Amino acid sequence: MNNSFLKDYYSTLRDYFLSGGKRIRPLLCIATYNAFKDKPDNKIVMPSVGTEFLHNASLIHDDIIDKDDFRRGKPSFHHRFRKYHEKYNLKKMVAEDYGTNIGIIGGDTAFFMGLEAYLFNDFDKNLNLKAIEYYEQVFKEISDGVLIEVDMVNKKSLNIQDYIEMIALKTGALIEKSILIGANYAEVDKKYYKQLSIYGINLGIIFQIIDDILGTFGDEKVTGKPTDGDIREGKKTCLLIEAYNKLDNGKKNRLTELIEKQNMSNEDVQDVKKLFQEAEVISSCKNLANNYFREAKDNLSKLEPAINQSELEFFKNILKFVNEREF
Amino acid sequence: MNNSFLKDYYSTLRDYFLSGGKRIRPLLCIATYNAFKDKPDNKIVMPSVGTEFLHNASLIHDDIIDKDDFRRGKPSFHHRFRKYHEKYNLKKMVAEDYGTNIGIIGGDTAFFMGLEAYLFNDFDKNLNLKAIEYYEQVFKEISDGVLIEVDMVNKKSLNIQDYIEMIALKTGALIEKSILIGANYAEVDKKYYKQLSIYGINLGIIFQIIDDILGTFGDEKVTGKPTDGDIREGKKTCLLIEAYNKLDNGKKNRLTELIEKQNMSNEDVQDVKKLFQEAEVISSCKNLANNYFREAKDNLSKLEPAINQSELEFFKNILKFVNEREF
Repeated sequence: MNNSFLKDYYSTLRDYFLSGGKRIRPLLCIATYNAFKDKPDNKIVMPSVGTEFLHNASLIHDDIIDKDDFRRGKPSFHHRFRKYHEKYNLKKMVAEDYGTNIGIIGGDTAFFMGLEAYLFNDFDKNLNLKAIEYYEQVFKEISDGVLIEVDMVNKKSLNIQDYIEMIALKTGALIEKSILIGANYAEVDKKYYKQLSIYGINLGIIFQIIDDILGTFGDEKVTGKPTDGDIREGKKTCLLIEAYNKLDNGKKNRLTELIEKQNMSNEDVQDVKKLFQEAEVISSCKNLANNYFREAKDNLSKLEPAINQSELEFFKNILKFVNEREF
Repeated sequence: MNNSFLKDYYSTLRDYFLSGGKRIRPLLCIATYNAFKDKPDNKIVMPSVGTEFLHNASLIHDDIIDKDDFRRGKPSFHHRFRKYHEKYNLKKMVAEDYGTNIGIIGGDTAFFMGLEAYLFNDFDKNLNLKAIEYYEQVFKEISDGVLIEVDMVNKKSLNIQDYIEMIALKTGALIEKSILIGANYAEVDKKYYKQLSIYGINLGIIFQIIDDILGTFGDEKVTGKPTDGDIREGKKTCLLIEAYNKLDNGKKNRLTELIEKQNMSNEDVQDVKKLFQEAEVISSCKNLANNYFREAKDNLSKLEPAINQSELEFFKNILKFVNEREF
């Protein structure tokens, strides 16, 4: 069908997909596949993009949920359609609803596009069906993680273990599945799956801990995201949980009072940041990340005899990169 | 993970799935499968539910987009979580956003649950992969239909052909694919696919035309939906398009003026209904539906020699039911 709105929609979606991101998930899928093969094979490239589409789908929906207007320094998907609405001066619907509505469908489209990666490629049908099973399973894990996170906003007391379980689902599971999908296509012996899983989940946990730190203390110009969002939303980041663990009762109460406001002033946000700094939460969170870093490294060593040297180096480097990144 | 919010979420979703609906899509999938088999076989039941989940997923997202608080006489999915928010007096997020956010994820969950129907059943893997291909394809058709519909709200002039193309995607495609998925599992000769497709798409077109009529002129107690929603949203229903076709210029302008208001009064809605009645749009729309009814019947006759008598009767009855239904 030759519909001009559909053309605008799909080209906006394409532009959104191509507007950045580190492509860690496809890279890990490809590396895992090649790690167990005698020589690299390009046919893994097609299925490797599936989890990247799923990742983008969940970003599109998350940005609506979190009311984030920017992503990677550019407008988020729903925000692009809010601006589209303003450009064409569409009357019947209000701009915010219009952006949300097209954004809901945009995320849905990205979910389904990801499925095509496992339908149209050069692999055996049994391997494709198994990949789709992972795709379906990881979607459930991600959405459980997001639901737990939404619910956590309303929880008073939380410990760091609840947080770790939440991010293992929200972020760890998709990195793990990108790796396991690579292993599936390479028909890797099941005895290596446990190590691959732990490496992937931990990589995701570290990624999310660092993301929380950068989300509040990073350089906006480098991260492309405003540094007050998490605090304003009352997100239960590792920073907030560690601050509660370390502050005295008086300061804890002050923190609660600030966080529970529905509309925080800029000063409120700064006060929260000061309490975080007093509690030295950055170093506690980096220590936490380091525990998962060491466990991931140990599991990688166990895989060492079974995988190719060049991919082993890649796995080590990406682990180091994620643990030390500043953007 | 033993999380009390997740428990509430999944039980609300379950309750939503079980709160009604005619189950036309699974019934058609099962009937198509059995129509070509020597004897009925229960193993088709499992995969038959896939398109019903997809249907529910798209209802959940549509109700957010259309701001519909009720569905089948009961609260829509996002509205249930708005009430959940009020019940637990959750502070940090406003109730409307909370409902929308959980609703976005609710639709996503339903999409993915539908996939399980093709992953976990007793059929051959090749047939399952082909079913997933249909599932992926029909999702794109539905979302294209919804996007065209959202865009149509802002369009000045429209003809009935644009409308038919839109509802063939939005409603026809999923009924068609429910049938083709049944045919796929029964390994039906491809020469019958065209007739099955036309029957299914037309059934969907008729369903949607009658839905538009009932949406404005039905009995709220029977349909479970308020009869002012479509008019208030400025939806390009067949009623509205036919009214434009048949009214004189003066009345056409009056209709435009009413429809373009961002907040219509009850009187405005009644005035639109009066203009619809003056233009006798109900009978024009019923005539339109009758064209698709006849074409569907013709295609059914062509299938007659190839399919079992009991399913032939079922196909005829459901066609008649959809064309004459009042709820």
